[in-house]
Formats: sequence, C-alpha cells, structure tokens
Amino acid sequence: MTATAAWGTSAPADDLAPLTIDRRALREEDVAIDITHCGVCHSDLHAARNDWGRTNYPFVPGHEIVGIVSAVGSKVTTFKVGDRAAVGTVVDSCRHCDACHDDEEQYCRETATGTYNSKDRIDGSPTFGGYSKSIVVAEPYVLRIPESLDMARAAPLLCAGITTYSPLKNWNVGPGSKVGVIGLGGLGHMGVKFAKALGAEVTMITTSPEKGADAQKLGADHVLVSTDKAAMRAATRSFDFLLDTIPVAHELMPYLMLLDRQGTLCIVGAIDMLPSFHSGLLLGGQKAVAGSGVGGIAQTQEMLDLCAEHGILAECEIIPMDGIVDAFARMERADVKYRFVIDMSTL
Amino acid sequence: MTATAAWGTSAPADDLAPLTIDRRALREEDVAIDITHCGVCHSDLHAARNDWGRTNYPFVPGHEIVGIVSAVGSKVTTFKVGDRAAVGTVVDSCRHCDACHDDEEQYCRETATGTYNSKDRIDGSPTFGGYSKSIVVAEPYVLRIPESLDMARAAPLLCAGITTYSPLKNWNVGPGSKVGVIGLGGLGHMGVKFAKALGAEVTMITTSPEKGADAQKLGADHVLVSTDKAAMRAATRSFDFLLDTIPVAHELMPYLMLLDRQGTLCIVGAIDMLPSFHSGLLLGGQKAVAGSGVGGIAQTQEMLDLCAEHGILAECEIIPMDGIVDAFARMERADVKYRFVIDMSTL
Repeated sequence: MTATAAWGTSAPADDLAPLTIDRRALREEDVAIDITHCGVCHSDLHAARNDWGRTNYPFVPGHEIVGIVSAVGSKVTTFKVGDRAAVGTVVDSCRHCDACHDDEEQYCRETATGTYNSKDRIDGSPTFGGYSKSIVVAEPYVLRIPESLDMARAAPLLCAGITTYSPLKNWNVGPGSKVGVIGLGGLGHMGVKFAKALGAEVTMITTSPEKGADAQKLGADHVLVSTDKAAMRAATRSFDFLLDTIPVAHELMPYLMLLDRQGTLCIVGAIDMLPSFHSGLLLGGQKAVAGSGVGGIAQTQEMLDLCAEHGILAECEIIPMDGIVDAFARMERADVKYRFVIDMSTL
Repeated sequence: MTATAAWGTSAPADDLAPLTIDRRALREEDVAIDITHCGVCHSDLHAARNDWGRTNYPFVPGHEIVGIVSAVGSKVTTFKVGDRAAVGTVVDSCRHCDACHDDEEQYCRETATGTYNSKDRIDGSPTFGGYSKSIVVAEPYVLRIPESLDMARAAPLLCAGITTYSPLKNWNVGPGSKVGVIGLGGLGHMGVKFAKALGAEVTMITTSPEKGADAQKLGADHVLVSTDKAAMRAATRSFDFLLDTIPVAHELMPYLMLLDRQGTLCIVGAIDMLPSFHSGLLLGGQKAVAGSGVGGIAQTQEMLDLCAEHGILAECEIIPMDGIVDAFARMERADVKYRFVIDMSTL
C-alpha cells in the first residue's frame, strides 16, 4: 500500500514526530481503514519510551482506533467501503488454539499479534498503531461501531472500555452485585459506567473526595475515600467485586479488607510487582486477587453493542496530533478527564 | 458436666500435659461425645505456643475429633447414644447471617465459635479442643461418620480433609480438570485423593522426587519436581487449578507460571505474608491467587459421605496421648506420613 503518514518515534522518546510508514498491500481477508480518531492509552507512552524494554523502532503507538473502511479484500463479507470500523489491541492470533476457539484471542497460546510493536504473522513486517492516517487489519479482528455512537468518544472503548468490561462480565457482575471501582482515570471511569449498566450497586473508591463527586456524576452510587480510616473500617467485607484500576504498584491489603466472602479484587491497571500481602485476607472467606487483560474480539463487539444500547461513551478531551507531547505529559500527572483522543484529521 | 481429663497447657509451650477441664452441662440441643481419636493439626502447635498471639490459657488443642455419642439433649433428633460422631474446627456460629444461611458457618459474619480457644456463645465459657476424653457440641455442628470408615483414619478429614475438599469443589474441579497439588503433607495428601476422586488429572508438585513417588502411590497421575527448571518451564500454562498446601510463606511466581488461562492458585496452608509477585502473571490470562479456609458443616458432611463412597481415608500414624511432644517435634520437621492421630483410649 502507499506510504502512510504517521506519528511515532525512531528511538525511545516521550515526544513523537511525523514518520512515514508503509501499510501492507491489501490481502484477500483485509480491511483498510481511514482512521478518524485514536485514543491515547498509558501503554502508548510506556512503549514509546521503551519502559518495558521490548519496543522495536521505528514505532507508532495507538490501539484505540476508529475510522471508515476505505477498501476491502476479495474475501471480506462483513465490511464494505464507507462502513464504520474499529481496531483494538489485537490484530491477529494463531486462530487454532483453545483461547482463540474460546474467543479470547488476547490470550492466544501462540501469542496474539499486537496492533503495534508486533510482527505480522504472514510476512513478518512490523505492526504500526493508530497514530496514523490508515491501518490494514484482517477482517476477523475488525470491530463494528454502531451508528448511534459518537466516533471520537467511542475510540477509548477499544482498550479502556474492554479492559474494564471483560472482568465485570466474566466475574458475573449484575443486579445485586456490590462493586467497588478503585481509581478514577481512563479505566476507572469506564468501570463505573459498565458496572452501573450491568445493574450493580457501584462505589467509587478513591483518595480524593473531588474524584468521588465526579464519579457520582458518571453514575456511581456511593463514594469511599480510601484515606478515611473510619470509612474504610466501616466498609470491611462489603464488596463482591473490586475493579482495581490503579495504574502503578500499590498496597492491596486495605482493599482486600473490603472484600466480602468469595469476593475478588481484579487488577486491570498495574503491571508491576505487587507489594507483599497477608494470605489470611484471602483464606478468611475464600477470596481472590485476580488480573485481567483487555478482552476477546467477540466480547469487544458485545461491549460496543451494549454501549449503543445504553448510550455509553468515554469522557474525552479531543486533541490535535501535534498536541500529543503535551498530552503525554498531562497523562503522567493524571491531568485528564478521562481520556485523550487524537482527531486524526489534524495529521 | 463432670470434670474431663484433657491434655493441654497453662502457658505457651510445645509440650502439653494432663489438665482437668469442665465440659458444660448438656443443653437441650447438645450432643455429648466420648472421643476415640483426635488428629494433630499444625494449628494445634501454633496455638499451643501462642505463635499467633491470641491463645488464651488454659488451652486444650484438637479439632479433628471423632467418637461415640454418650448423651443427647432433649431436642436432639439426628443423633442417639452409641452413634458415631465427629467435630471439626467450628462448634457454633451466629446462625442468622448470610454465611450461616449459605452453609458457610466458618465465614460467619459474627465470627464462628472455634472448637478451641474460643468462647461459648451462650455462657461465655472457654471452648476446649479434642485432646480430651469428651466434648459437648450443639447438634447442628456435629458430623456423622459413615459406618464403613475407619474411625482413627477418619479423624483428619475434619480439618485436613475439608480444607482441601472445599476449594476443589468450589472451583468446580472435575473430569477434564488439570490439577496440581503443591506440597505433600497432611493437606497435600488429602488434596491428591480428593482431586482424583473428583475425576481430575492430578500432578504432585514437590521439591522431592521421593515425595513425588509417594504421591503416585496415593493416586497422583504425574509428578512435577519444582526444582527442575526445565520441567517447570515445560509445564508453563498447563494447570487449571493449583492447590497450594505449602504450610509457610513461599514464592508464588514459579507456580503462577504454571497456571493456564482463567486458572486459580488457591492457598490453603500458609497463613503469612506472601512474597511480592508480578501482576502480569495474573493479567496475562485472567488468573487468580485465592485462599480458602476449611469448609461449612454441610460440605464437611458431603465430604465424609464421598469418602465412604470412594473409600477415602487419611494416611495416619496412630500415637498415644503422651507421644504428643515427640509428634509435635516430628511434625515441625515434616517427619510424618501424613498425619498423627491420637488414640484417646491412652489418656
């Protein structure tokens, strides 16, 4: 395919700049998408800087991608030119392991192909993300954005959305569930919306009373300020499920105290060494500390359809492409309500 | 009731000695039991020494109790004099909270009454355990030992048995499940037997090839030696459920590597601070670290009935009452296959 303008980096850096990349020629099962918007995920910054030590350069971030189909391969049946389309964190997988068969491609036994910083399974070419004019992705990994959803505000659903929706669904959160969402950022604000849409009684657990008030505007029923020791003590053993969206390593014990019998605290934000905690907090009620990573393609589509049904969208600040350096800096200070989304027409 | 000879301690100690205690007068719902055997649990030693800082003296350990009913209160309907009976770790609970209603009295919201080192809910008198000639317990907390089971070898089922059976059942272990039992002691050897009886494919995970061979005699299908790095690497992501019976704090990361997608490592042995581990091991497959503590009365009876059906009993070394000091010392060195049981006729 013709060269596609993109923003990325040729070496570890906080500041991205224009790059020229080649998108692969359309294969028979491929969908080409003109990108209209791309969400800015904290992982984009970690990867751009090579914080995890496995970034290959040149590098183009972005895995919260929405746009319009510009071309389709000869075997594509579910998309046509002009359709709305979206791409999340995964663009291919082995397609034959148990995880792929179970619609959990993100846990593919042969490792899923990431939307960026990965290698195409057919020709070995590097994958480049959505801070770009276009992307080419095989049909089974392309999502459909319902017509009723605003495109810009739908973009963060592809990572922040599914990352919070998947564990809520898989741990059977529903009417009667008492759910605590820990932390109010890109993930946490989606967690509040989804837990509420699924029928749960939702508490925002935060260090900041102001964030608590914000969460109530988003639908949270209650606020628990985690620095208020008396309130934390009073909330002992009162939650069935805690969605822990804190993005860095943190103490778990104060939160484990809050779990009711057979409750689970599920980590979706912090990818790090967890501080030591006492096993008695788990043994005394058959409780668990779990983790969850995004969600499969089918579940992502299910989530998008639920968003259309309930009118759920991310709260976003739309930025131009050359605002990314400032956006990264503000994201580091948690100074965003709640997700930056790049308007790709500015590229 | 008349004074009952018992073995216990008046101050923190490894060595127990004869004591005289009073059992309460029979209430209308009480069952009095002449104890024939009592298993020796590691908790007995921890509590006798006040390792957990909450032992009250005088103190009589023992919560793996079997015997014969010697008297019943006026309202007792399910036991009569001469019946086989058993008592585990819990002798009463609030009886009205959700946990009690759900047959999980051990997690009673108002704290279950322990078989020893607890206070009777009616008169506040201390509870004394089963290193004793007799015990008096309210009918709803008394278990029935099927006639086909050997009494001595049934005793450890009341703690070691239910502690391993409950998580296997609650995490739906059955035909097709790949279960690893970590550690071969009082708990681990019961874990192997129950996982096998439930239809799982069972692997003993141990530091010792000799213990592996022993586990295979007990029914384990495979052995994984945890110090064999190549074998551990080859077993990456191959278990649905890990029953972790290691009795002390230990690294979790080598075992978490073994969990397959949506797998759970359940701690039943170590009650301690757990070393730090990396959350990525949980996020990469929606995995969990859980804990579990004994099991409810109904599930304990279900387990005893399953033991009768499958001929499951603990592997025991029967000791006289005055062998307890030596038994404690040997238990500390893990020098027992796999549970000491006191023959109470020697008291």
